[in-house]
Amino acid sequence: MRYVVGIDIGGTNLVVGTVAEDGSELLGLATEPTFPEQGSDAVLARIAKLAKASMAAAVRKEIVGVGVGAPGPLDTKSGVVILTPNLGWTNMPLRDRLAATLGLPATLDNDANCAIFGEWWRGAARGGRHVVGLTIGTGIGGGIVLDGAIYHGASDVAGELGHMTIDSTGRRCKCGNYGCLEAYASGPAIAARAVEGVLAGYVTTLPRYVAGDLAKVTAQVVYEAAHDGDDYALEVVRETAGFLGAGVANIVNIFNPDVVVICGGVTLAGDKLFVPLRSEVKRRAFKPGVEACRIVPGELPGTAGVFGAAAVFMQRTWGGVTTG
Amino acid sequence: MRYVVGIDIGGTNLVVGTVAEDGSELLGLATEPTFPEQGSDAVLARIAKLAKASMAAAVRKEIVGVGVGAPGPLDTKSGVVILTPNLGWTNMPLRDRLAATLGLPATLDNDANCAIFGEWWRGAARGGRHVVGLTIGTGIGGGIVLDGAIYHGASDVAGELGHMTIDSTGRRCKCGNYGCLEAYASGPAIAARAVEGVLAGYVTTLPRYVAGDLAKVTAQVVYEAAHDGDDYALEVVRETAGFLGAGVANIVNIFNPDVVVICGGVTLAGDKLFVPLRSEVKRRAFKPGVEACRIVPGELPGTAGVFGAAAVFMQRTWGGVTTG
Repeated sequence: MRYVVGIDIGGTNLVVGTVAEDGSELLGLATEPTFPEQGSDAVLARIAKLAKASMAAAVRKEIVGVGVGAPGPLDTKSGVVILTPNLGWTNMPLRDRLAATLGLPATLDNDANCAIFGEWWRGAARGGRHVVGLTIGTGIGGGIVLDGAIYHGASDVAGELGHMTIDSTGRRCKCGNYGCLEAYASGPAIAARAVEGVLAGYVTTLPRYVAGDLAKVTAQVVYEAAHDGDDYALEVVRETAGFLGAGVANIVNIFNPDVVVICGGVTLAGDKLFVPLRSEVKRRAFKPGVEACRIVPGELPGTAGVFGAAAVFMQRTWGGVTTG
Repeated sequence: MRYVVGIDIGGTNLVVGTVAEDGSELLGLATEPTFPEQGSDAVLARIAKLAKASMAAAVRKEIVGVGVGAPGPLDTKSGVVILTPNLGWTNMPLRDRLAATLGLPATLDNDANCAIFGEWWRGAARGGRHVVGLTIGTGIGGGIVLDGAIYHGASDVAGELGHMTIDSTGRRCKCGNYGCLEAYASGPAIAARAVEGVLAGYVTTLPRYVAGDLAKVTAQVVYEAAHDGDDYALEVVRETAGFLGAGVANIVNIFNPDVVVICGGVTLAGDKLFVPLRSEVKRRAFKPGVEACRIVPGELPGTAGVFGAAAVFMQRTWGGVTTG
């Protein structure tokens, strides 16, 4: 059995683990804050330290490579991160620098692609032939896995599903466009919509969860209040399901997928989100597409990106991954 | 050189031709109104008559099969049209009925898929590896051609790009959803938006083109008035470009295609549509995706579906089509 180190580089956290080629083991899983403000050399040094610790934890295993997932845009062929606003990196030869430091061959792919590929390989989308996924956090990323391979498009920037316009004259998005799905259903967008309602005078217990400091309202706080029975918070979750439903209905009409998998903190909202989400998709999308598609939360919170990054290495190096 | 009959069945017209395997010749091209109200037996008899005439025109050619394109949803494997509201057909074994009548093996695929496949094979999207196309007429269809093959999804209903939600609380669409691209930018939607403005009192020469009968305003009439310098008609075309731009920007962000090809009567609007369309896409979509993508009108008006239907037969039967 061979092992591959999976590295998931996020704007907030680094996650590293060593993955068996059949996906049955994840050894030396470790996570640490990214602290991008320390600069790229410091971040890379910490990634290398984490990776070496993970490899050391995989005692007497044959470790053959490293798969890296990072925010993009990036070039999967040259292994260069072209630009990551969250990390402040430009034209960073990430793959080759990590390969040199760790003394192992490496691959690079987009973080959201890796997460969805991980969910396809070992998580909620297992067995799906046409899989489309969303990763919902600070932003909304997307990944498309067709016939067991990540779909990259012409220049490695396919799958920006968070920047689907669902309201062409709607909320401004950080990307410059109006009415992107991300502008309604990312973590900060959910919090912002909730706070707007509080300021507009809706009756809600939300302020109590943040000791009156509305700047501290997060999507998680909204889910917590909804779970505790706050009607207004529940309404915000239902509205989120409505916006996500418009986006997922587009995915169903465009891709006719077997599985739409939704990853990230938003899955904490559970059935309160997924039940109205599925009914919104049913209301909007074509029936044969809806009938063919499971809409499910991710099953690998925190580790999908590590599994997926390792699987990308396996697939590019060996021509396939072991499933089943 | 082998030849394949291509049959394009639309709600309004039937188009048939006999295509050389290298795409260099289209023989016996013929078209006739569909008259779906005559019932399926009559329509099928007329299709067979057209196909036989086309085959007869291909004197002394080796004709080996028939490719059929029809509105869906349909099942490409069984060759059955499941439901076509425009034609009034339900569970019609179209492929096998035509194969039996013509004494040749046949294949069946969706009409919009065939049109975009035709544009990829012999038209404006030639050489594209990731091609996404729209067919704009009474409705808006879509086709996705990846690595030289039509992408069908899990149950043959992928590519319903006209039913992308671009305004989740917008105009009601015939499909039941709100704010579909089709509800803004199909031929009838363009005409309806134009008429709304006339009724609202905008100064325009549009009524003169239809002798005052606003029910006769079509998208073509709007383009004609725009070409003649009518400011209001020009504004309607620009708004159409805006709506289409939101849809095409979604396609760019999702697929990162080499080519987006737009087929149908809307291409008659020419640069008056395509110039503002391209700038709207640039405004909305991610830069690397925009830079990688040509947005072009179809080059095979009237025959893309015939070329594509024949090419589907070639690809399924021979495992590929001759390009170049």
